[in-house]
Amino acid sequence: MGTLIDTGSDRFVLVTESGTRDGFQAEPAFIPTEAKVATLNAMIAAGVRSFEATSFVSPRAIPQLADAAQVMAQIDRRTGVRLAALVPNARGAERAAAAGVDAMICFVSASESHCQANLNKPIDAALSDVAEFLPIARRFNIPVRGAIATAFGCPFEGEVLPDALLRIAEFYQRHEIDELTLGDTTGMATPPVVERAVWALLDRFPRLRIALHFHNTRGVGLACVMTGLQMGIREYESSIGGLGGCPFAPGASGNICTEDLVYLLHECGYETGIDLEQLCEVAQRIEQVVGRTLPGQVMKAGPRLKRTSLEGIRRAVG
Amino acid sequence: MGTLIDTGSDRFVLVTESGTRDGFQAEPAFIPTEAKVATLNAMIAAGVRSFEATSFVSPRAIPQLADAAQVMAQIDRRTGVRLAALVPNARGAERAAAAGVDAMICFVSASESHCQANLNKPIDAALSDVAEFLPIARRFNIPVRGAIATAFGCPFEGEVLPDALLRIAEFYQRHEIDELTLGDTTGMATPPVVERAVWALLDRFPRLRIALHFHNTRGVGLACVMTGLQMGIREYESSIGGLGGCPFAPGASGNICTEDLVYLLHECGYETGIDLEQLCEVAQRIEQVVGRTLPGQVMKAGPRLKRTSLEGIRRAVG
Repeated sequence: MGTLIDTGSDRFVLVTESGTRDGFQAEPAFIPTEAKVATLNAMIAAGVRSFEATSFVSPRAIPQLADAAQVMAQIDRRTGVRLAALVPNARGAERAAAAGVDAMICFVSASESHCQANLNKPIDAALSDVAEFLPIARRFNIPVRGAIATAFGCPFEGEVLPDALLRIAEFYQRHEIDELTLGDTTGMATPPVVERAVWALLDRFPRLRIALHFHNTRGVGLACVMTGLQMGIREYESSIGGLGGCPFAPGASGNICTEDLVYLLHECGYETGIDLEQLCEVAQRIEQVVGRTLPGQVMKAGPRLKRTSLEGIRRAVG
Repeated sequence: MGTLIDTGSDRFVLVTESGTRDGFQAEPAFIPTEAKVATLNAMIAAGVRSFEATSFVSPRAIPQLADAAQVMAQIDRRTGVRLAALVPNARGAERAAAAGVDAMICFVSASESHCQANLNKPIDAALSDVAEFLPIARRFNIPVRGAIATAFGCPFEGEVLPDALLRIAEFYQRHEIDELTLGDTTGMATPPVVERAVWALLDRFPRLRIALHFHNTRGVGLACVMTGLQMGIREYESSIGGLGGCPFAPGASGNICTEDLVYLLHECGYETGIDLEQLCEVAQRIEQVVGRTLPGQVMKAGPRLKRTSLEGIRRAVG
């Protein structure tokens, strides 16, 4: 199960958009299917190539994403664009395969308490569920990416040590899953914690392809991206506008914001294939969809070299 | 005019709080003097050692800080705490000296258009004003720090090249000002731009003590701090709660947030002498003073290892 998207040059960074999954899932109100589809299509048009588009978990557990199959059916599919979806078990895998996903994302928490709170079962049982659905993905020749939630810390248990990550990565490797996402579920990642986790994993599994999924709950999401870039990580997950939130931190930010991430990457000389201005327009439209101001900054301030008219300012000051 | 505060170990980072100046100045309403004093005193109690406390500019130009002398008179002064103030000219220097500031900050923009818009005069004339007030500072034996506004970009002119910084730094050096603040006035700093500016300055003036003053207008303020730390810069300016704003980017964030900065520094193994929890409480109180939610994240989410009760979550989810 190799790489779907050839990232080419070392300056290319793959940005995986997870706003329609990780973001919309956290919204109190159900986002209409057509708004979800329009959001995804607009981001595809802006050059986004990789999506965690939706989730095939139980519609009872997460009613906000109950329309996963309808969303998949209506997206403007394009060659070179990967639409992945979260899949918790065999039933979800069957639904995801039928809906035509490009990749399935299996997931398990690194900490027992969070796995129990999130999936209502211990880590071993969650991994058994994964093992059970892999043959379905293989039958349909659909690649699988492995995700680890609470990879940088658990809100119930505190510190998550590399051994907990290695154990799950080892399971994924044994099942030939060589793409791994480290999820910063509640925004506990910091530069040294990221460094420790990534080194431990690459030391044991040098060919592992790691993606980093940060939340900006404590404001240091893009500082963690800087650390990841310096360690050679070339794939990051983020949400348009900074959609999302944290159930344990009311008022705190959600995922790192895609436009701000893309801005940082471009300014640091990386390529993403994404049109930043177009992406900012999508983010502004999403503020209307969710009915509130989102944390994204670049969509408010504009690109770095946007010129202000001196006359306009003089009038404003005077 | 040497260093007032001995930063001791290489892991010590000096955090200069500028919220009561750069932040309150941007508030639409006048913040009452007693609220300003209470804020400063609470931050001193939380361990903040360095402040850009207020500004002795013309009260007509910036009425929000017209009470500079009263504020200075009422602060709970402590040994080892530096209370600096912005000073634009000889008149301001006389007022600042009479008010008992520990340091004066002179400033000029790196770009002509911004200097004109901000001070209503060209850079050379602004530097003459500085030269004129230096004897006043020397007479009272008050150290002077030199600041450069729009150091990483100008909203009117775009890119600011190192030569513009070197020219002003050269002037400051000639006048024995060896502490320099690079101000990211409208949030145009990015990691490579910071790197370029700092290298150029240190290459020419190796003994210059540089502080970095970032705004989070485009979300990458703390990413820029990461770059500064890697270049050996050990002084940063920020605002409690992320107070402040940018007149050219309505809705955008102001200065980088002090609590979030302190959180990042502590997590990266640096010492600041600041009690983060106490600082977060100050930030929460300031939200009440200014009557709105501030961008600071750590004050909302709490420290990284704050434990959530699993029982509480189960009840909330169920």
